[in-house]
Amino acid sequence: MVDFEDRREELLQEIEEMTRRKQYAALRDKLVELEPADIASLFEDLPGDALPLLFRLLPKEPAAEVFVELEPDSQELLIRGFSNSELKEVLDELYVDDAADIVEEMPANVVKRILRNADPETRKSINEILKYPEDSAGSLMTTEFVDLRGSMTVEDAFKRIRRTASDMETISVCYVTDEGRHLLGYLSIRTLLLSEEDDVVSDIMEPNVISVGTLEDKEEVAQAFSKYDFVALPVVDAEGRLVGIVTVDDAIDVMEEETTEDIEKMAAILPTDKPYLKTGIWETWKARIPWLLLLMVSATFTGQIIASFENALAAVAILTAYIPMLMDTGGNCGGQASVTVIRGISLGEIEFSDLVSVIWKEIRVGVICGATLAAANFAKIMLLDRLVFHNPITVTIAAVICITMLLTVICAKVIGCVLPLLAKKLGFDPAVMSSPFITTLVDAVSLLIYFRFASALLGI
Amino acid sequence: MVDFEDRREELLQEIEEMTRRKQYAALRDKLVELEPADIASLFEDLPGDALPLLFRLLPKEPAAEVFVELEPDSQELLIRGFSNSELKEVLDELYVDDAADIVEEMPANVVKRILRNADPETRKSINEILKYPEDSAGSLMTTEFVDLRGSMTVEDAFKRIRRTASDMETISVCYVTDEGRHLLGYLSIRTLLLSEEDDVVSDIMEPNVISVGTLEDKEEVAQAFSKYDFVALPVVDAEGRLVGIVTVDDAIDVMEEETTEDIEKMAAILPTDKPYLKTGIWETWKARIPWLLLLMVSATFTGQIIASFENALAAVAILTAYIPMLMDTGGNCGGQASVTVIRGISLGEIEFSDLVSVIWKEIRVGVICGATLAAANFAKIMLLDRLVFHNPITVTIAAVICITMLLTVICAKVIGCVLPLLAKKLGFDPAVMSSPFITTLVDAVSLLIYFRFASALLGI
Repeated sequence: MVDFEDRREELLQEIEEMTRRKQYAALRDKLVELEPADIASLFEDLPGDALPLLFRLLPKEPAAEVFVELEPDSQELLIRGFSNSELKEVLDELYVDDAADIVEEMPANVVKRILRNADPETRKSINEILKYPEDSAGSLMTTEFVDLRGSMTVEDAFKRIRRTASDMETISVCYVTDEGRHLLGYLSIRTLLLSEEDDVVSDIMEPNVISVGTLEDKEEVAQAFSKYDFVALPVVDAEGRLVGIVTVDDAIDVMEEETTEDIEKMAAILPTDKPYLKTGIWETWKARIPWLLLLMVSATFTGQIIASFENALAAVAILTAYIPMLMDTGGNCGGQASVTVIRGISLGEIEFSDLVSVIWKEIRVGVICGATLAAANFAKIMLLDRLVFHNPITVTIAAVICITMLLTVICAKVIGCVLPLLAKKLGFDPAVMSSPFITTLVDAVSLLIYFRFASALLGI
Repeated sequence: MVDFEDRREELLQEIEEMTRRKQYAALRDKLVELEPADIASLFEDLPGDALPLLFRLLPKEPAAEVFVELEPDSQELLIRGFSNSELKEVLDELYVDDAADIVEEMPANVVKRILRNADPETRKSINEILKYPEDSAGSLMTTEFVDLRGSMTVEDAFKRIRRTASDMETISVCYVTDEGRHLLGYLSIRTLLLSEEDDVVSDIMEPNVISVGTLEDKEEVAQAFSKYDFVALPVVDAEGRLVGIVTVDDAIDVMEEETTEDIEKMAAILPTDKPYLKTGIWETWKARIPWLLLLMVSATFTGQIIASFENALAAVAILTAYIPMLMDTGGNCGGQASVTVIRGISLGEIEFSDLVSVIWKEIRVGVICGATLAAANFAKIMLLDRLVFHNPITVTIAAVICITMLLTVICAKVIGCVLPLLAKKLGFDPAVMSSPFITTLVDAVSLLIYFRFASALLGI
């Protein structure tokens, strides 16, 4: 790939140089060769006052595409500097779903100006999209799509497509509706091209069409794209009327956002939607501290377990040295099981109804993992800890440690797989039931097992 | 969404019932109403001997689409049962990139039969795709795309598209090449539809086209889709000749695979590419045990640190009770930082050149997180542990614990953000430098800090 990142520095210098020398025509030619996403990314890296000037160099169409890719701060800066006619020009070029996204990010007075300068139809569409909840299919869709009637001929259909194509985000799929706007079927542009001019749309359309409701969770929408390989998905209201379509590029954005959220939750972070380097330290603190506090306080139980076995530890002091290893291994085992199950749930591979087979699998995996670890650990204790480090350790103590290891691993695997599935069943997010949470729980379990066996086998 | 999962059980029963009653025509009508991915998923759930019969009920085109969505085991079962002409029919309907994927999964004798029954052009294309390394753009691409010449008129272009459209995975974008097959530009079907019949392709095409090399890593390819909102991306060889295109549906599959791999690595699991419930327990064991063993052995250091401070612990036994809390909090803090940075790297938001600003940010976040946690902890120790649990704890001991907490959190944040960036710089996968690994490291650091302060402040 002609990699943009490799050329970034060079391009930035060229742009600054050309701006200084006022070589605007050459600069414009340079810019239009780039992808809009890359132009936006360069603009973000330039000193703030250069942006309005550079943006005005761009031709209408790429200008709108670049505008969409800019950060909200830069968009606001530009809008505040636009004359009404400039604002109108940009708005006319935007797809309405992008316009709605921008409106959502702007302060009230900017929103008012945007809506005042949008043409009435665009304004109506923006308001339509904005009325849906933030994470719904409705908020994700665009209201611009090609709709055909069943009675049209292929020739009529092409006329309609040609008339409206320039406003549409995609023309690869056209939707067939009746007078009441009810969705009847769809037609790919390929089918249209392969049909005769006088074929009738209702004869050649595909009547089995998968659609989503306006209130459907956007995560479900994204999953449908990955499962069915669609490039667009129609959105219908409660009466089955077609109100918009979601396109694959927006579905990909949702997938990335949801994955980031899942990963953050798995690491005990509250999800944020800003890039790392643009998040302030107090914001980062706010996202990280709640779970840290909660998990810290939960560790009190573990501490109290140790405190209550103080005498046992005083009698056989070397037992303390193996606490971190037992706790970490338990945490790692539980984390492996929970993360696997959480990912399976979010890919739709594992359901709550699989609970029994998941537990059964984890028990067996726990037994063989636990046995391997216990055996390796026994060898390590006898050869390394006893002979090399001269720790005061007997075969019985080693046995206590290794039996604890085996049982801890099995418990950790079971806890790790059950909690995410339970969370899912109870309507919570399974991703929260991951390593940090499970580690805290498994710590307590492993210590209880440890001291129970130590008391029994060592007679303390 | 008319949710398929809700109807699964009902559909399965209907299919079994209809199969038993031999109502094949009705069964076929029932099946063709469903999406290929859903049909395949139902077939996988039916008893094995039903598959060949049910598959043969499907019309040619959906049959091929269902075939692609089946698991390799079922595909093999079907191929072994096909007559040569049946096999030929399915192969003719497949897109070559799907055919190549199937060939890769089959045993040698099945591969031979497939290649013998494919028509010569398909065979050539399959072999072309198979010659590229597994994770490359070449292995992901299809060799079927619409290529136009610059000298063609729009009318010629449409003729060519109509002639070839039925074999193409996408016709939304057409590519313009010269006699030597060098990529010159692209044209969307929209532009073609909006142009006059006698417009010349080279005049209306977009000459700035982003392409990838055949050997480009497929993760980079997927990132280009998410960044630039493409529906297809051309693949060129070292001489700039267009050899294939990657379509957005395949890019989405790559994104999901790569995310799963990242998440598995973050949980100290070696990546596997099978769904959880289809993986045998020994396979799961093999994926999980290496890191568990390595991390368990690494915990030896932590154990030895404790062993060497045995006397201090014997003198002030209550210190032991706070080890788990300090270790867990350190691990959680390090995990938060590392996971955030790893995700930032894989989304292309953070580069090695950001190292200094990342460290500076994490130090500040570490200070305020650490201070909050230390303060909360001090309050908890004095109010809960001392007054409620009657732990024998002094203000000095509480101070030791809280100072350790603050310093551990700062160290954990820095270690957590530096290691993934270093790994990236050294060409390793940053995802490995995540919670489990960092926890083990931070454990040792936190214990060293703990005992150092305990010795100094408590005079032991």
